[in-house]
Amino acid sequence: MGMVRVKAIVEYEGSEYSGWQVQPNAPTVQSDLERALKVATRRETRVAAAGRTDAGVHAAGQVAVFDVAADIDLHRLRASLNGITGPAVTVVSLETVPAWFDPRRDAVARSYRYTVVHGRPRSPLLDTRSWHVPSRLDAAALQELAAMVVGRHDFSAFRAADCEAKTTHRSVRYSAWTSSAGVLVYDITAQAFLKNMVRILVGTMVETVLGKRSIEDFAQLLEGGDRRRAGRTAPAKGLLLVGVEY
Amino acid sequence: MGMVRVKAIVEYEGSEYSGWQVQPNAPTVQSDLERALKVATRRETRVAAAGRTDAGVHAAGQVAVFDVAADIDLHRLRASLNGITGPAVTVVSLETVPAWFDPRRDAVARSYRYTVVHGRPRSPLLDTRSWHVPSRLDAAALQELAAMVVGRHDFSAFRAADCEAKTTHRSVRYSAWTSSAGVLVYDITAQAFLKNMVRILVGTMVETVLGKRSIEDFAQLLEGGDRRRAGRTAPAKGLLLVGVEY
Repeated sequence: MGMVRVKAIVEYEGSEYSGWQVQPNAPTVQSDLERALKVATRRETRVAAAGRTDAGVHAAGQVAVFDVAADIDLHRLRASLNGITGPAVTVVSLETVPAWFDPRRDAVARSYRYTVVHGRPRSPLLDTRSWHVPSRLDAAALQELAAMVVGRHDFSAFRAADCEAKTTHRSVRYSAWTSSAGVLVYDITAQAFLKNMVRILVGTMVETVLGKRSIEDFAQLLEGGDRRRAGRTAPAKGLLLVGVEY
Repeated sequence: MGMVRVKAIVEYEGSEYSGWQVQPNAPTVQSDLERALKVATRRETRVAAAGRTDAGVHAAGQVAVFDVAADIDLHRLRASLNGITGPAVTVVSLETVPAWFDPRRDAVARSYRYTVVHGRPRSPLLDTRSWHVPSRLDAAALQELAAMVVGRHDFSAFRAADCEAKTTHRSVRYSAWTSSAGVLVYDITAQAFLKNMVRILVGTMVETVLGKRSIEDFAQLLEGGDRRRAGRTAPAKGLLLVGVEY
């Protein structure tokens, strides 16, 4: 029986998961999907993703790839998988792709969104999807910093201590804040990111507009630097993987 | 000690509440707030709202009014209340209003939003805030119906069987659907609504575009009619009280 490669768009509410990647003794999105595939296809099936999201991070359009028997009905497979995965994970769509398709290497753009609730009490409606900053943040000042992030930079100051990427230069295609009553949303698109890069960028931008460092310091950090000179890693729950382009 | 009337903007995630209004042996937003006020002010305090939301309905901008001692510090009262209410209720702001202010009678506009996820599997990110309709819905057809709702109509077909309103005519100022990938959002503004009016309008519009009745039938229902001729009451969890204007 021939096999066929399948690309899945996967949505998940990350609150109850220890991230994407399989770990012993912890619920992860990958293990939930692999368990569902094993039940639905009666085969051990390995799933690869466009990016490994951290514990607590959400996804609207994670891309996952796996191989199944070529005669499988994808519409029925999707329904089976969604009947087996927990309520916090949904396979939105399935389509066949060429056998060489690699969701990580072939991605040309990944888009993330980070949500901050600021200058007001906690928001019951947004609490599991946002970072609550009690102080009021200056949206125009944040936007000035976000605009500086666009382009090719050395993001060595903006990566987790255990990040294993060999190079630290990344090209950011889009980086902007939008503001509505009490809510600030940061959208960023790049071909690839370093580990925790979006969360450290957000944490550092917020600390900068709160006066903990100067705009000049922020500009200098974009030319490379030590992780300890950048700001805190913003909480995982505010981050959403919006989608991946190929 | 003189008393002063206070207007509160209240946000809540309605999933775990049996609606706004105090009921014996059920958690409600009103009882949560009245309990918090009793602890914070050491007085029995009655809270009145702009509208009584049903069990499961959410609010970004419910308006609640109560009387407190005139020398109270509202900034500290807000912090106290938010430390006492459950995580699903937040007092966003407090301000003094004239003693004659009535949140229900003095409202000039109430805005509600209803969210439908359609033509795709369930959405983990929106599940507690939306109605999941597996079939794909025609956004343009929904919008055609929504446009017919604008203006003054007899909404007798669009109210709960136990609705106690004396008159059934209401003037709708705004009524429109907006569509993005797999998500349809209905916004409606009127001075006042009948019980379950928004949810029955949504249920009837959805049934109409699914072919269960004609556009002409829908138009006729807006001139008055029996509740049984309208469609189902869409689920409470899809409804959000956006705000109230005075």
